[in-house]
Amino acid sequence: MNNAGEIMYAWAKDLYPICRSITGNGVRETFEYLHNIHPDLNIHEVKSGTKVFDWEIPDEWNITEAYIEDEQGNRIIDFADHNLHVLNYSEPIDEWMDLKELDKHLYSLPEKPDAIPYITSYYQRRWGFCLPHSKRQNLKPGKYRAVIDSTLKPGSLTYGDILVKGETDEEILFSTYTCHPSMANNEVSGMIMAAGLAQYIKQQKRRYSYRFVFVPETIGAITYLSKNIDSMKKNTIAGFMLTCVGDDRTYSFIPSRYGNTLADKVARHVLEHKTDKFDEYSFLDRGSDERQYCAPGVDLPVVSLIRSKYLTYPEYHTSLDDLSVISSQGLQGSFDKLTECIEILEKNHVYNNVHLCEPQLGKRGLYPTLADPDSTKKIINLVNTLVYADSTNDVIDIANLTNIYAGDCIKILEQLENADVVKKGSLVFTRC
Amino acid sequence: MNNAGEIMYAWAKDLYPICRSITGNGVRETFEYLHNIHPDLNIHEVKSGTKVFDWEIPDEWNITEAYIEDEQGNRIIDFADHNLHVLNYSEPIDEWMDLKELDKHLYSLPEKPDAIPYITSYYQRRWGFCLPHSKRQNLKPGKYRAVIDSTLKPGSLTYGDILVKGETDEEILFSTYTCHPSMANNEVSGMIMAAGLAQYIKQQKRRYSYRFVFVPETIGAITYLSKNIDSMKKNTIAGFMLTCVGDDRTYSFIPSRYGNTLADKVARHVLEHKTDKFDEYSFLDRGSDERQYCAPGVDLPVVSLIRSKYLTYPEYHTSLDDLSVISSQGLQGSFDKLTECIEILEKNHVYNNVHLCEPQLGKRGLYPTLADPDSTKKIINLVNTLVYADSTNDVIDIANLTNIYAGDCIKILEQLENADVVKKGSLVFTRC
Amino acid sequence: MNNAGEIMYAWAKDLYPICRSITGNGVRETFEYLHNIHPDLNIHEVKSGTKVFDWEIPDEWNITEAYIEDEQGNRIIDFADHNLHVLNYSEPIDEWMDLKELDKHLYSLPEKPDAIPYITSYYQRRWGFCLPHSKRQNLKPGKYRAVIDSTLKPGSLTYGDILVKGETDEEILFSTYTCHPSMANNEVSGMIMAAGLAQYIKQQKRRYSYRFVFVPETIGAITYLSKNIDSMKKNTIAGFMLTCVGDDRTYSFIPSRYGNTLADKVARHVLEHKTDKFDEYSFLDRGSDERQYCAPGVDLPVVSLIRSKYLTYPEYHTSLDDLSVISSQGLQGSFDKLTECIEILEKNHVYNNVHLCEPQLGKRGLYPTLADPDSTKKIINLVNTLVYADSTNDVIDIANLTNIYAGDCIKILEQLENADVVKKGSLVFTRC
Repeated sequence: MNNAGEIMYAWAKDLYPICRSITGNGVRETFEYLHNIHPDLNIHEVKSGTKVFDWEIPDEWNITEAYIEDEQGNRIIDFADHNLHVLNYSEPIDEWMDLKELDKHLYSLPEKPDAIPYITSYYQRRWGFCLPHSKRQNLKPGKYRAVIDSTLKPGSLTYGDILVKGETDEEILFSTYTCHPSMANNEVSGMIMAAGLAQYIKQQKRRYSYRFVFVPETIGAITYLSKNIDSMKKNTIAGFMLTCVGDDRTYSFIPSRYGNTLADKVARHVLEHKTDKFDEYSFLDRGSDERQYCAPGVDLPVVSLIRSKYLTYPEYHTSLDDLSVISSQGLQGSFDKLTECIEILEKNHVYNNVHLCEPQLGKRGLYPTLADPDSTKKIINLVNTLVYADSTNDVIDIANLTNIYAGDCIKILEQLENADVVKKGSLVFTRC
Repeated sequence: MNNAGEIMYAWAKDLYPICRSITGNGVRETFEYLHNIHPDLNIHEVKSGTKVFDWEIPDEWNITEAYIEDEQGNRIIDFADHNLHVLNYSEPIDEWMDLKELDKHLYSLPEKPDAIPYITSYYQRRWGFCLPHSKRQNLKPGKYRAVIDSTLKPGSLTYGDILVKGETDEEILFSTYTCHPSMANNEVSGMIMAAGLAQYIKQQKRRYSYRFVFVPETIGAITYLSKNIDSMKKNTIAGFMLTCVGDDRTYSFIPSRYGNTLADKVARHVLEHKTDKFDEYSFLDRGSDERQYCAPGVDLPVVSLIRSKYLTYPEYHTSLDDLSVISSQGLQGSFDKLTECIEILEKNHVYNNVHLCEPQLGKRGLYPTLADPDSTKKIINLVNTLVYADSTNDVIDIANLTNIYAGDCIKILEQLENADVVKKGSLVFTRC
Repeated sequence: MNNAGEIMYAWAKDLYPICRSITGNGVRETFEYLHNIHPDLNIHEVKSGTKVFDWEIPDEWNITEAYIEDEQGNRIIDFADHNLHVLNYSEPIDEWMDLKELDKHLYSLPEKPDAIPYITSYYQRRWGFCLPHSKRQNLKPGKYRAVIDSTLKPGSLTYGDILVKGETDEEILFSTYTCHPSMANNEVSGMIMAAGLAQYIKQQKRRYSYRFVFVPETIGAITYLSKNIDSMKKNTIAGFMLTCVGDDRTYSFIPSRYGNTLADKVARHVLEHKTDKFDEYSFLDRGSDERQYCAPGVDLPVVSLIRSKYLTYPEYHTSLDDLSVISSQGLQGSFDKLTECIEILEKNHVYNNVHLCEPQLGKRGLYPTLADPDSTKKIINLVNTLVYADSTNDVIDIANLTNIYAGDCIKILEQLENADVVKKGSLVFTRC
């Protein structure tokens, strides 16, 4: 799928403008759009007040209009211009006040004077407006009317998942979040990547089942786990957080809690072989829903194979994280790395040698008759793959031991299996 | 105890002049002094000839007077001036001889011409005098009278211990030696540190029991182990050799036989976090009673967290190792590092998360409402401590995994325990 | 055996001219020569067509004469001049052809214009001549007569072994190959080293049994394993490939499949202590019969402790690899390293301390009475060896832990055993 990046970028343009939060109609609108792409997307609603582990589903937030008006009736700041202008989860207000009072409810970034910051207050009732610092500094003393036409009342939290059944119940998890308003890399890129990967997965029969999870960050992941933890713990062989997968500046890797899962192994292998370089972070640098998936007792094998990591790029959590930050090339790059992981995992078997000692490759046409450098390299890779197919290593182990890309190892092993010199699974030798 | 260094330095001034050896009245005088500080110090006597593992308690040595006199009746060298002047454990002598004969019994250090060396001969009968090389070179040919008024006859070996009972039988060992005559860092500093730590320990109720051992080096430690090995092997969770803990030049660490005990873990952690740098030695560089405590079959978890290591500093084993080498600051530094080890060990529990997924810190007042850099660092340390409190790590493991000082980790974990989000011990999850 | 190098070099001069292949009378002549040295050399014949694991013994090849004649009757290339001139296993031919046709059957190395390359075609019927590239370029157009008077018909494959029985059935393997025609380092050196080591072994009673294997590479090793794998898997504690052990340029080490066997441990230790430096290769760089011995399911602990590794030196697999490449010094160097491995393995016991705590070395005369630097080093090595003789380490482990050469550790441990302070085997303590 060489056009995956373009397809996803087109979706991004549609999803970017919607005002999302951890609950509310913006989220529902988002799910409706995703449902058009994937009719098998299950959409779930969980009522406010429901207990989920140590948490409780909060009241639902909806907003229709918000602005600050000056005495002349000019709308100085308008939610209609940019949905980041309103502190997410603001309670309603309609009051005149002087600048000094208003200022207590304004949020801006002195170090990024042209950016509207992204600020939320889900669990403490507040109201507020976010604006470029340059604009804030130009506000003249006087009376201002602050209007936020929002509701905060019992409703429900919306989340979704796509379950693609494979030959086995063992499954691979992709999780993304749906709670950020108009930001491109640190929100939209994850949702469209999940949608794109789901399309890719469905193109052919799969060994593994796949679970695509769309939830508001933190509260949504906790809600999802509270309902699915037993089957997920039983079945998940590898999982990937999808966030910040749209720009084109670098690749980043965040390991699981101890960095020793199959997801870590495959993601590191792909990044080492398929990028020039990548930024390897510690689990201490985590920051999205791996916080829940990798929590003690949850212990799912979840890593992040992403582009510029949240918190590290200048546009992060501001209005500058717009559609210009992501690109079809950037998306395609993530897509390619993630589908490489998928294809390696799908064929990541343990192999063993059928024969004791080296098999006679010549009689099977596997030994090159011409000794050019290309053939020499080929035969070296072949015998090295063969010798570590000793029923103790999976394909990625073999690839790491032989310095061959796992994707190439798979091709070699399939060739060797067709020639009846290796078999999948545990050790059975044929003696003469 | 910020004045511990000063208190200990005052003790040092009293103990420094006493002529100690592996047996004898100088040792008993030393114990009397220590008994005044700690009335619960148990003083033991073991008779000469007693078998202790592969060894035998030697005859007791006592000395009243010793000097070399020239033909004019001048005392060229006098034990009364410095107790290092006599080869420790010298047999008695009173003879006139010429310089050539006398010279066979003189010991000096050409490379340190002003120092009296410290020489012993416990297990082979000899007599001798030690003197500055500069003085030896000025001895004129002629007759000299060598007088050593000593006794070497069946008596007993004296050692002591202080046992402080805690809530559990598990105990922490501190061991020092009492056999060196007037040397400050490589003798007195260890005894006074043991006495100081015992005072510190007794100030409050303790989880662990504490054992402070005062023995002559080698033969004393072997004697002590021959009487206490079973209970010490059963109960000792960590042990520390106290020697050379008084100067102010560096910190040194000598690991246990394989460097993998709790004592190694805590001592390394404290040195890494609480010193700018320290000298890490190999177990091959050992040289005090860890030779016995870490011997095969004894296998106690004993390390040395000390200042300038024996053999490495210029004054070592000479009269130059006097009270000017140690200082209240130097002693205080060792005291602080060792009490940090104690406090960490006392609270070094395994913790686990009470809840699946992250707990809601906000509703417990653990999440900062203001996002200044200090609060951010605090919340990061809190969630990182929390995520590795997964019932597989003790506090020091968590501290090493999170790059937080264990003392700070303990504070965080106590805060988390008070908020009912972690518990000590094995894994029990609360599900909603 | 300081003259081992000279003795082996004399053998090399006799064996070098013989035209060997994987089968045939040249091999038999070689074995006859070796049989004169070792009358207990067992010579085996395995019939063509016999199945050996995945392989089949090929037809036997013999050659009496081969040359290329020009129209004037001059022998341009003659097998009588150098046996590398004929492609090994060439089928018979006697035909006139023009240069263009002949050229299809010529092999030369443009980058080494004066070398005759070594080319084989065991499993695909071909004929060919090998010659210096400089000579090939001077061939004038015209008719040439190609004559190869060879036979390729059912016969047998010849291999040999020497089994030297020791006190136990556990055995040490040395394997070399007998299939290369006139090449000195990459053929003859291995055979004569095996013969030399067998002589050395027989000089005294041995703890271990020894197996010296002489086989054609690949097909011979597979044949040998197909007949002996069960006892070899049961008994082999360490094995060494003998190839390229005759030059004097460097030492090389190729580990076993996972680099973690006793053979790896002893060979690395000897190379680290007894060479200034050596080239350490990966198992991925293997290329001789360790390919069979270390194959999955065979899993023998076989390494290569050799000189300039095959494929890395300029004369490799050409007529330049003649008797000037090897030397008695080069052979002696390999011999010394390999006999060091043997002597260490022979005495590579696990030891434990007889006494708890340090034994009293003084009463056993093990403690130096004079404290010169040499004695100090000696006593340090002695107590360090003693402290790691804790029933968990073999001699090589102790040597690695103490930075002492294992050969020296053995001497110390024997001294300690004679003094009844250590014993071989598992832990038994004497308490007083």
